[in-house]
Amino acid sequence: MKILVVHGPNLNLLGTREPDVYGRTTLQDINQQIMELSGELGLDTVIFQSNSEGAIVDALQNTPCDALIINPAAYTHTSVAIRDAIAAVGRPAIEVHISNIHKREEFRKTSYMAGVVTGQISGLGMEGYLLALRACRKILGR
Amino acid sequence: MKILVVHGPNLNLLGTREPDVYGRTTLQDINQQIMELSGELGLDTVIFQSNSEGAIVDALQNTPCDALIINPAAYTHTSVAIRDAIAAVGRPAIEVHISNIHKREEFRKTSYMAGVVTGQISGLGMEGYLLALRACRKILGR
Amino acid sequence: MKILVVHGPNLNLLGTREPDVYGRTTLQDINQQIMELSGELGLDTVIFQSNSEGAIVDALQNTPCDALIINPAAYTHTSVAIRDAIAAVGRPAIEVHISNIHKREEFRKTSYMAGVVTGQISGLGMEGYLLALRACRKILGR
Amino acid sequence: MKILVVHGPNLNLLGTREPDVYGRTTLQDINQQIMELSGELGLDTVIFQSNSEGAIVDALQNTPCDALIINPAAYTHTSVAIRDAIAAVGRPAIEVHISNIHKREEFRKTSYMAGVVTGQISGLGMEGYLLALRACRKILGR
Amino acid sequence: MKILVVHGPNLNLLGTREPDVYGRTTLQDINQQIMELSGELGLDTVIFQSNSEGAIVDALQNTPCDALIINPAAYTHTSVAIRDAIAAVGRPAIEVHISNIHKREEFRKTSYMAGVVTGQISGLGMEGYLLALRACRKILGR
Amino acid sequence: MKILVVHGPNLNLLGTREPDVYGRTTLQDINQQIMELSGELGLDTVIFQSNSEGAIVDALQNTPCDALIINPAAYTHTSVAIRDAIAAVGRPAIEVHISNIHKREEFRKTSYMAGVVTGQISGLGMEGYLLALRACRKILGR
Amino acid sequence: MKILVVHGPNLNLLGTREPDVYGRTTLQDINQQIMELSGELGLDTVIFQSNSEGAIVDALQNTPCDALIINPAAYTHTSVAIRDAIAAVGRPAIEVHISNIHKREEFRKTSYMAGVVTGQISGLGMEGYLLALRACRKILGR
Amino acid sequence: MKILVVHGPNLNLLGTREPDVYGRTTLQDINQQIMELSGELGLDTVIFQSNSEGAIVDALQNTPCDALIINPAAYTHTSVAIRDAIAAVGRPAIEVHISNIHKREEFRKTSYMAGVVTGQISGLGMEGYLLALRACRKILGR
Amino acid sequence: MKILVVHGPNLNLLGTREPDVYGRTTLQDINQQIMELSGELGLDTVIFQSNSEGAIVDALQNTPCDALIINPAAYTHTSVAIRDAIAAVGRPAIEVHISNIHKREEFRKTSYMAGVVTGQISGLGMEGYLLALRACRKILGR
Amino acid sequence: MKILVVHGPNLNLLGTREPDVYGRTTLQDINQQIMELSGELGLDTVIFQSNSEGAIVDALQNTPCDALIINPAAYTHTSVAIRDAIAAVGRPAIEVHISNIHKREEFRKTSYMAGVVTGQISGLGMEGYLLALRACRKILGR
Amino acid sequence: MKILVVHGPNLNLLGTREPDVYGRTTLQDINQQIMELSGELGLDTVIFQSNSEGAIVDALQNTPCDALIINPAAYTHTSVAIRDAIAAVGRPAIEVHISNIHKREEFRKTSYMAGVVTGQISGLGMEGYLLALRACRKILGR
Amino acid sequence: MKILVVHGPNLNLLGTREPDVYGRTTLQDINQQIMELSGELGLDTVIFQSNSEGAIVDALQNTPCDALIINPAAYTHTSVAIRDAIAAVGRPAIEVHISNIHKREEFRKTSYMAGVVTGQISGLGMEGYLLALRACRKILGR
Repeated sequence: MKILVVHGPNLNLLGTREPDVYGRTTLQDINQQIMELSGELGLDTVIFQSNSEGAIVDALQNTPCDALIINPAAYTHTSVAIRDAIAAVGRPAIEVHISNIHKREEFRKTSYMAGVVTGQISGLGMEGYLLALRACRKILGR
Repeated sequence: MKILVVHGPNLNLLGTREPDVYGRTTLQDINQQIMELSGELGLDTVIFQSNSEGAIVDALQNTPCDALIINPAAYTHTSVAIRDAIAAVGRPAIEVHISNIHKREEFRKTSYMAGVVTGQISGLGMEGYLLALRACRKILGR
Repeated sequence: MKILVVHGPNLNLLGTREPDVYGRTTLQDINQQIMELSGELGLDTVIFQSNSEGAIVDALQNTPCDALIINPAAYTHTSVAIRDAIAAVGRPAIEVHISNIHKREEFRKTSYMAGVVTGQISGLGMEGYLLALRACRKILGR
Repeated sequence: MKILVVHGPNLNLLGTREPDVYGRTTLQDINQQIMELSGELGLDTVIFQSNSEGAIVDALQNTPCDALIINPAAYTHTSVAIRDAIAAVGRPAIEVHISNIHKREEFRKTSYMAGVVTGQISGLGMEGYLLALRACRKILGR
Repeated sequence: MKILVVHGPNLNLLGTREPDVYGRTTLQDINQQIMELSGELGLDTVIFQSNSEGAIVDALQNTPCDALIINPAAYTHTSVAIRDAIAAVGRPAIEVHISNIHKREEFRKTSYMAGVVTGQISGLGMEGYLLALRACRKILGR
Repeated sequence: MKILVVHGPNLNLLGTREPDVYGRTTLQDINQQIMELSGELGLDTVIFQSNSEGAIVDALQNTPCDALIINPAAYTHTSVAIRDAIAAVGRPAIEVHISNIHKREEFRKTSYMAGVVTGQISGLGMEGYLLALRACRKILGR
Repeated sequence: MKILVVHGPNLNLLGTREPDVYGRTTLQDINQQIMELSGELGLDTVIFQSNSEGAIVDALQNTPCDALIINPAAYTHTSVAIRDAIAAVGRPAIEVHISNIHKREEFRKTSYMAGVVTGQISGLGMEGYLLALRACRKILGR
Repeated sequence: MKILVVHGPNLNLLGTREPDVYGRTTLQDINQQIMELSGELGLDTVIFQSNSEGAIVDALQNTPCDALIINPAAYTHTSVAIRDAIAAVGRPAIEVHISNIHKREEFRKTSYMAGVVTGQISGLGMEGYLLALRACRKILGR
Repeated sequence: MKILVVHGPNLNLLGTREPDVYGRTTLQDINQQIMELSGELGLDTVIFQSNSEGAIVDALQNTPCDALIINPAAYTHTSVAIRDAIAAVGRPAIEVHISNIHKREEFRKTSYMAGVVTGQISGLGMEGYLLALRACRKILGR
Repeated sequence: MKILVVHGPNLNLLGTREPDVYGRTTLQDINQQIMELSGELGLDTVIFQSNSEGAIVDALQNTPCDALIINPAAYTHTSVAIRDAIAAVGRPAIEVHISNIHKREEFRKTSYMAGVVTGQISGLGMEGYLLALRACRKILGR
Repeated sequence: MKILVVHGPNLNLLGTREPDVYGRTTLQDINQQIMELSGELGLDTVIFQSNSEGAIVDALQNTPCDALIINPAAYTHTSVAIRDAIAAVGRPAIEVHISNIHKREEFRKTSYMAGVVTGQISGLGMEGYLLALRACRKILGR
Repeated sequence: MKILVVHGPNLNLLGTREPDVYGRTTLQDINQQIMELSGELGLDTVIFQSNSEGAIVDALQNTPCDALIINPAAYTHTSVAIRDAIAAVGRPAIEVHISNIHKREEFRKTSYMAGVVTGQISGLGMEGYLLALRACRKILGR
């Protein structure tokens, strides 16, 4: 069972900038926990991060997987291209947001991804990725 | 660690009506799995279902708990009273939706709860409740 | 052939308050005519009125019927819960409004029920209920 | 008691085109039933169909009647001229729609007629015309 | 100096229907005054009325004139075809409304004609046509 | 002179939850002051609180009074049923809000009640109820 | 028969600034023609210009007249105070615009005055004032 | 305790124009009652009226006071300048409207003042000012 | 293979009015080229033009064809009747616009036809009709 | 005559993913047909595909051409940068969409490109590219 | 080179009210720096402040200048009269805002001035005026 | 004091394409002036241009600086990713636009950057960058 985890733009800065807002957990910490739980659950997980919309579309097209976990970050609200790539890939997909986007700016309330993913998990911090892994395991196990 | 799980209107019909749409899993099945996982995670969970907005507000006010899991169903889109009750209770709260509300009617895309809960999990079926239990465990364990 | 007739909030006041606006026909008068025509048409009709959204959802869930006539009154414009209950019941349903809602306030022009009922009859006064009974008879007779 | 029944554009195709969508009942079948029930109810009914907005306005102006039944079809959503003609005629008028317009495209949800007719009947198929005849009989009988 | 005066749909009913709303002045009375003042001002005026959008477009295309006075009535708010015909004719044009359209329904506040006519006169009753004649005389006299 | 005072959902929690936001004045304190001032002003006041929309409609229908003071709380923004009940009762009615709703979330800025009450008092805390009592006294004294 | 003519802000610049846009006719030229035609029609006309909203309200309140002609210029789109003053004065009032406001910026399409004046004349240049004088003469002559 | 009472545009006409709409109470009557109650409550009250937005801003800036009562009338809906002056003054402020603005034109439903005042009282006629005085007394007495 | 080409309102003026805007190509020139290319492609083409919405609906209903090319001109934005006729006919249909409607007025950006035609060609001048003929040939050739 | 053909994001997947939706024609098949018809028409055509907005802007800037054919796919609805690049290039440009975007999601109905291209062809499948080539040939041949 | 600097309503309070929000720099301080830099740059600068929209329009009309710097403050969002005066004056004009208006209330995001000024500088505090002086110097020096 | 200047998409074409619109000043000319003034002001300035959103985000993350000047060009209106990067960087930032975006298309009036930058300068051409440098110098000098 191959899982692709995609982190969108600026998530590479997690934990190193504005720690009082986003905490001190780095993307490396998150990725390590993702890999550990993947091991426990018997999932073969690949992780990808990019600040470029086109590069994320390329990665979605070119990385074979059985299910997909994506935190599109800023591209959530602006990228039809990533939406179309998720739809084209045709795999179960879970959209993760670290913060509760409904407590932020108005424009963050719309997600181009929401209409093509299987489900969303938001507002639960780093834990959201781990819950998404469990959900993938469940979906693929059916 | 006490957890209150609230099911909103019409969820009591799960599995008995329109099985081709919602599947054959009943609310009783869901509740049994919630109780089982609660046992595993050491959570003391109470479950409440009502078709009445006022009764749900009453339950939120009167049931002491450390965290809250709520699937407000139809009231998601129409109840400021339940929103206010969740805010007044002042506990970590997770909003669960069985289906992906972004694939349904336009009016189901807005949630009065979203602005006051800690996080949301949607589109992941019955599994959403179990992931929410794990998230509560994590939040309370911090 | 069992028919459930549901009257929404404040309809119990018909004929007793603001007679110059709503006329002097009481809900009892309407119900009597509904029962008389039901007799003529061979329909086994049950009538229910409540001011509570939750109680109406309960009644829709718990009253077995072959077809449904509902005047949701104020809940027309605010209740997704009643909409969902009508959809879950899965029976032919006719929405009745005594007055022409298009001649009233702007917010009365939208109906959450409209998308799930078979048809609507509005603006024809008490006669609307009787026409709805005939329509039910026709639909069930097919 | 003279009744004018007006069928709007494309209704002349009923039953001959797209039978899987609209059924095999032709406008002739509907008109025959309208005339039969008119006979039973003692109504002197005249039926008019046109694809032209101007011709419908002309007919409304030039056909003396005591009450009016109109299915404006596509002109429901675009014709202020027909609205004004109905208002000028100043007779009880009932707007009929064969299908439930709330289950169709967004633009079909607004009706220029709604503000000037006595009432509407929609979603009840051919039966809608017959119920409208009964309602006219009732209104004129008062 | 040839002037074309166009009266839109339902204006032929002026003075004969709803006299308490629109007064007892008939379209014939108005036309007579238009012809009288035209004589005084040395204008060669032709008057046209139709309930049909297409017939009004035809008339605008086929009636040679130096200036145009049009009361599009209901078509004010719905006819791009008449707008395009006025623009194609390329003559000075004055839009007249008998009543103040800003005191009526919301949808009467937008005019497709407004963007292509020289000017508008509204709310001044029958007098509006006579003022429009004077304005045409002035414009053509320059 | 009988006055009915209605407190809407979650107001029973005043002073016991989130004291740093809403202060430490409880609903009991408010009610006591209402009763004291009622005594001074010679008003026979009855107080009712409920979290249920239907129960508030029932109370409005069933409690005879000469004037009405209502803080609909969350139902301000969502309940057409309570609006209709106030209109049906047909008594002078004053809408009270403890906080200034224009300084809160966007959805709190619309009130279904505003169109049917005599007046509103908002943002003046507990004092709003006392001013409303004085206003009722004045209105009934005319 | 006393007529008050009010010119709004920046109209004092007519003919002296941007002559290629507004022509070389000055406000003095317009006023002279207004006075001349007033003489012919037997009207006792007073003319007032101000750039200040408050001063225009004052003038409307303090200048006795039988009818009112106002070109509110920029205040057309922003002044409820002038609207209220016109309504309070309770005299026939005609709103004049020199240019066709529908061919200009979007925000110039709404007029606070339109709902309280008798009629509007726009797009007919200086001639608009003269037509308005004739209309006043007609209205007062009734 | 100094109180500044500000009356906005056209309020000087109260009682002298349109008495059937606004009653026969003049602004002088209202002011007299304000001064009398001020005396009773031990408040040192200054009253100001102007039709000019700028003059009201000047008055707000230049009149020292402990609390402020303002009926901005037409400027409620159009003046950010008065809003900013109230905010700059930084005193408790109560917005008063004589009529219930929610029963009037759509544009009267928004208030630029609402976001910066302490509270609002509307729809209670002249009594609104007196209640506002009592509220000021209460606020300053804390 | 029969093709129906429909030209909407005012297109009969092409080349004779406003040549500096629309060029000097007349509808006759276009039709001649349509007939020539039809000959080359082996298509049996019938051409129809009308300024009347109703006449266009009649033509669509009464002209047997295998595919349809329509330039609805002004009716693009206002005619649900033509939309419904195209849908009822149930043939491949191509919508042609001579100019790029996205460079014109805002209201020209919506097309009632777009949802029921096979495809659109716009902004390519007279050539659009010829490309549409080729597309029909291709579609019918499959 | 040099033509640049640009394919936007995810078009490289045509024919290989979701064949039941998009058919089995691959981008290679389309490109081959484009090159064949280019040969026939004497056009020197270069084809470019990328999933990256920036790379498409670069290609538009750096590839000399006499005309441009672009299917911006998802970037149609989100890229002002590509719009600006097309405008800066200043060559005739034709926007092609394989499917009829008006039959898809609401957000696909707006095109940032539409305002700067010469024309659009949509809904005609692969044939759209070939028609666009013919149109370019025509435009350049003038 | 004459420069007119206009300060809008409430700016005269700068530095004396709410110093924790707006700092302690007074308008006098700002004006002194404006005069000093004007001296350095060889500009003959006149400064004007008023709380009255009409007075600002008067000043714009009556003060001869080669360029204009204006901070319209609250009138930014409500004054078409000042916009029209700036346009009539026909000089280079720079709009200055001390704070970043995009970080404040929604209604502060629209500027009537923006469409007629040469440019804007916002969010840069007092420095904005000085940069505007330099920009005027540059523009006039061309 | 390190300053990063970022030029967005298509700005590399300045001066070489459409010189009649954008003038003949190239980006190289602008950059040279930026470097010259930087020298004068003692600023250590780095300049970056890219057509790729992702590359701009990368540059913002990876280029250490004390303040930031950015002309996001087309990305102003579409990029949340660049907004988030500016916010993450946490340095004073000034948004520059060469033209006055309020005189262009509607969609150019919204800026995702506006909410996170310190200030904006627009409409002042190349001079805008130089003023921004001065503003940075001032801000960093505090």
